[in-house]
Amino acid sequence: MNEIRPILWDDGTLKLLDQTRLPAAEEVVEINDYRGAVAAIRDMQVRGAPAIGVTAAYAVVMAATELWTSDRDSFLSGLREAGTVINAARPTAVNLQWAVRRMLEVAESEPDLAQVNARLLAEARAIQVEDEEINRRMGDNGRELMPDGGAVLTHCNTGALATSAFGTALGVIRAGWESGRRFQVFNTETRPFLQGARLTSWEFQQLGIPATLIVDSAAGIMMQRGQISCVITGADRIAANGDTANKIGTYSLAVLARENGIPFYVAAPTSTVDLSLDSGEEIEIEQRAGSEVTHFQGTPTAPLGVEALNPAFDVTPHRYITAIVTENGVARPPFVESLKLAAGNS
Amino acid sequence: MNEIRPILWDDGTLKLLDQTRLPAAEEVVEINDYRGAVAAIRDMQVRGAPAIGVTAAYAVVMAATELWTSDRDSFLSGLREAGTVINAARPTAVNLQWAVRRMLEVAESEPDLAQVNARLLAEARAIQVEDEEINRRMGDNGRELMPDGGAVLTHCNTGALATSAFGTALGVIRAGWESGRRFQVFNTETRPFLQGARLTSWEFQQLGIPATLIVDSAAGIMMQRGQISCVITGADRIAANGDTANKIGTYSLAVLARENGIPFYVAAPTSTVDLSLDSGEEIEIEQRAGSEVTHFQGTPTAPLGVEALNPAFDVTPHRYITAIVTENGVARPPFVESLKLAAGNS
Repeated sequence: MNEIRPILWDDGTLKLLDQTRLPAAEEVVEINDYRGAVAAIRDMQVRGAPAIGVTAAYAVVMAATELWTSDRDSFLSGLREAGTVINAARPTAVNLQWAVRRMLEVAESEPDLAQVNARLLAEARAIQVEDEEINRRMGDNGRELMPDGGAVLTHCNTGALATSAFGTALGVIRAGWESGRRFQVFNTETRPFLQGARLTSWEFQQLGIPATLIVDSAAGIMMQRGQISCVITGADRIAANGDTANKIGTYSLAVLARENGIPFYVAAPTSTVDLSLDSGEEIEIEQRAGSEVTHFQGTPTAPLGVEALNPAFDVTPHRYITAIVTENGVARPPFVESLKLAAGNS
Repeated sequence: MNEIRPILWDDGTLKLLDQTRLPAAEEVVEINDYRGAVAAIRDMQVRGAPAIGVTAAYAVVMAATELWTSDRDSFLSGLREAGTVINAARPTAVNLQWAVRRMLEVAESEPDLAQVNARLLAEARAIQVEDEEINRRMGDNGRELMPDGGAVLTHCNTGALATSAFGTALGVIRAGWESGRRFQVFNTETRPFLQGARLTSWEFQQLGIPATLIVDSAAGIMMQRGQISCVITGADRIAANGDTANKIGTYSLAVLARENGIPFYVAAPTSTVDLSLDSGEEIEIEQRAGSEVTHFQGTPTAPLGVEALNPAFDVTPHRYITAIVTENGVARPPFVESLKLAAGNS
């Protein structure tokens, strides 16, 4: 099987596997300016915290090309402004801001303005390559948590499509499977954007790992009836105390898991850990258009004129989380100590 | 506003407002034989525990017309066989079996075979009329539970469309609203069949009660953030101890409500109470076709060949339920006593 790599940089053009079209069509969108990258992030042609981090890094590369001028101050100030626009594409996942900040630091630290664009491109490529390495390390660290027998439940899409390759939570499932453990996989469809039905089901098919799709609200009865051995999800931002923002519905799964005595794991690179936040209460939750709820791919599901609320994420308090798998090891409670250690090492 | 009445008996023809087509189209299906009624129940053109009870009663009327013979024994034995076919249309809601049993008892108790079809029609009409009366009494009994200020969350469709008129849980919400209380309503879309998005949103529009649609998995964060004052759902079968089978996702809402200190109410007629079952563990959960999960109105949401599991109901253990509203009053724990009292009175 060829590895799925949803983000390709090709001589000045950013090529993204369009995740709004999968699995019906495997289409590539070509982006040549940073505002195009911002639009692709906002419209979720690319999504998943690590993947939008990588995309944001390339967006800074394109912004630097567009804004380049021999006046250092005006170049850097223009690039910072572009960074603000990129950061605003989606507010919840911290990887976006993390990547933009890392790129801006490179630009600011390069004394030779003639070198800066090459340095930025090298940095974006490094972020992309590192992301895959990090994911594979998460897989190594987390695979012992996967059951041999039993079943794993996952939510949303956390595979190669959500990253530069291999995935976070899905990567841990894959690493467990590839280490010879055998278990069933259940994945939620993940309304309203159907990342689970459209993307995760597709990735498991590509990987040859049998997975069964369920609606989001069927997870409860499956846990109650002993059909789930553990739950593993990704994360969009993790506060210093372990509170975890992730795709809407994650909190419900975590509460149901604890209620039924089932371990609940999170897999995320340390770039997702935001030590500047003491708790998840400070995390901004993106509210997306109600039309994502009232329509399905353009067809209305509800009567015209119905109001809808569409929070894209929720926050799972750390007390529901059994362990957080990072590239630097498996953090366990108290997370305020274990996460500082893991993220400090990165 | 005209009352919504989804089931109409018109001189030998059963006319059902087709709930698979709402809200895109208000179409009526006309049914002239009992197997057609069975198909309509199975395919969910009519759904909701009380509504399928009423439909089943008319199905027995049509079966009696089709199977009538002057030989009493062979007539009754044919009618019992038809009853078995009707009962098998959907296994979880007990109202179906309750209505068929009530109709068969009428047929068996009528000594004059020439009168039996008229008696059966009168009984089916009585079941339909009683259902509306019962729902209005549930509304009277439950409206005090609705908040003045705050917000009510409901799941699936429990309105007029799920009954002969007025509704169960939605009827309690309506009664609270019509008694002058003011609150927000949030209703889940209720995947996979979208009873919430398609039917409940439509009913609230018809009633002029403002309601906001959310995806099923957004209920958790709304409860966590103090945006929900109480949850109220219907039921498909309630065991003697209060364990309640209802639309998939109800159990999750109940667990989340208790976790967040929010009252969780069930509204159901006593015909939904099955005193023959000690607990919910004995309730059969209908497994429906996986294609309801992998497709949306004929369009695939998942890649071809993906396995899906589609349990249509779950069971909420009684310990998560604050109160059960019936036509004979509001039952509170211990339900094993209060339900026997309520159902014994019916």
